[in-house]
Amino acid sequence: MIKAVVFDAYGTLYDIQSVAAVTEEAFPGYGDIITQIWRIKQLEYTWLRSLMMRYEDFSTITRDSLTYTLRVLGLEHDSGVFERIMDKYLHLELYQDAMSALGAMRNRKLAILSNGSSAMLDALVRNSGLNRVLDATISVDTRKMFKPAPDAYSLIEAVIGVAPAEVLFISSNPWDVCGAKAFGLNVAWIERVMPEAIALACVNSELVSPLTMFKAIRTQMDELGLEPDYRIHALTELPALVAAHES
Amino acid sequence: MIKAVVFDAYGTLYDIQSVAAVTEEAFPGYGDIITQIWRIKQLEYTWLRSLMMRYEDFSTITRDSLTYTLRVLGLEHDSGVFERIMDKYLHLELYQDAMSALGAMRNRKLAILSNGSSAMLDALVRNSGLNRVLDATISVDTRKMFKPAPDAYSLIEAVIGVAPAEVLFISSNPWDVCGAKAFGLNVAWIERVMPEAIALACVNSELVSPLTMFKAIRTQMDELGLEPDYRIHALTELPALVAAHES
Repeated sequence: MIKAVVFDAYGTLYDIQSVAAVTEEAFPGYGDIITQIWRIKQLEYTWLRSLMMRYEDFSTITRDSLTYTLRVLGLEHDSGVFERIMDKYLHLELYQDAMSALGAMRNRKLAILSNGSSAMLDALVRNSGLNRVLDATISVDTRKMFKPAPDAYSLIEAVIGVAPAEVLFISSNPWDVCGAKAFGLNVAWIERVMPEAIALACVNSELVSPLTMFKAIRTQMDELGLEPDYRIHALTELPALVAAHES
Repeated sequence: MIKAVVFDAYGTLYDIQSVAAVTEEAFPGYGDIITQIWRIKQLEYTWLRSLMMRYEDFSTITRDSLTYTLRVLGLEHDSGVFERIMDKYLHLELYQDAMSALGAMRNRKLAILSNGSSAMLDALVRNSGLNRVLDATISVDTRKMFKPAPDAYSLIEAVIGVAPAEVLFISSNPWDVCGAKAFGLNVAWIERVMPEAIALACVNSELVSPLTMFKAIRTQMDELGLEPDYRIHALTELPALVAAHES
């Protein structure tokens, strides 16, 4: 029995690449590469700070990784530009399939479990209207430890009172899928980028594109000895999947 | 007083890019990109497995990350090719400045502290002749936790009996520099790639090169709120630096 459906936020419900329009406007020609480096350093910093026991919240990490990105690319900027890009993180676009999928599962508890700070998530959920369908928005911030640490996933039961075996967790991030499986949740991996498309691009000698490579190292299932229970390509597949899981 | 000089192995004493000749021979045109993706996933897996509490040793992680890399790039291969590439990891080339620098500091304790498994490190140190100058080769394997976790760095005192304040630790890896500083060691960062060169390459619109970008995200100092005590460009600077530190 699936009593709760819990979503990762960044890259799963919200399209973090929607930042690229703002970064492209600020730095013409660099929009996509900024978002790719920014994202990879943002993730690295969550893992490194967790391991170093030097936790800072996701808002600080997001700022620091943007600072790093602009420095590496040699892009000079004033604070106005920096803040305009940062602000976009509070107004990310929902993936088109998100609202209808959540609306169709309101007979379950619905929640977000995210690395985001409470302030970032509250703004994001309110700005996108998801607050109308979610029962809880859970930030790892109370544990001072980022996913994929078990402490982060244990917040689901602590906050909404549903045991891991009765939770379906959905993420587009392979490392998050593995972390959730290692913890004992039921897990659906949503493949936001088709792996076949990436492999094809590589084989077709588009090796020169750094964007293709960045996507390749972030969007294919990792070799961590863990596999998702389900693989989906749109959130709209979830209501049927939840029903099938129970039959 | 610096009583011990302790080195990271991969990328600091040993040139991991020396694998590229073997990967290029096995997969013409893909040599460099394989080594870059392989390295970034290798690091990711050490951090992710540490956080997930699913430790496997560095040998397993190195195999898994190579498997991932060849899969992502769509490169078919037989086990002979795979093993030939893996074997190179036991025969990495020493950086040219390593042996003479270590030889000049034999009045201190000299050691390696590495994520590598004991078997990998022993083979590497023996094959390169470093066993003649090192007092200890320390693997994090006994702690089942990778750098930059404090447990990994605490092995230095546990094994060679020198307190953190009397240790100079050297690494080319920015995240390793930050981890060592967070733990309380004296730290020298060796910049194996000149950041000016990377910034210049980016500014000169070599943005199309994925190699430039991969190097950029691995070789510049991270924004983790920590800084090395010293920045050097060759290991041969170390003997004078150790002497100056004490005066």
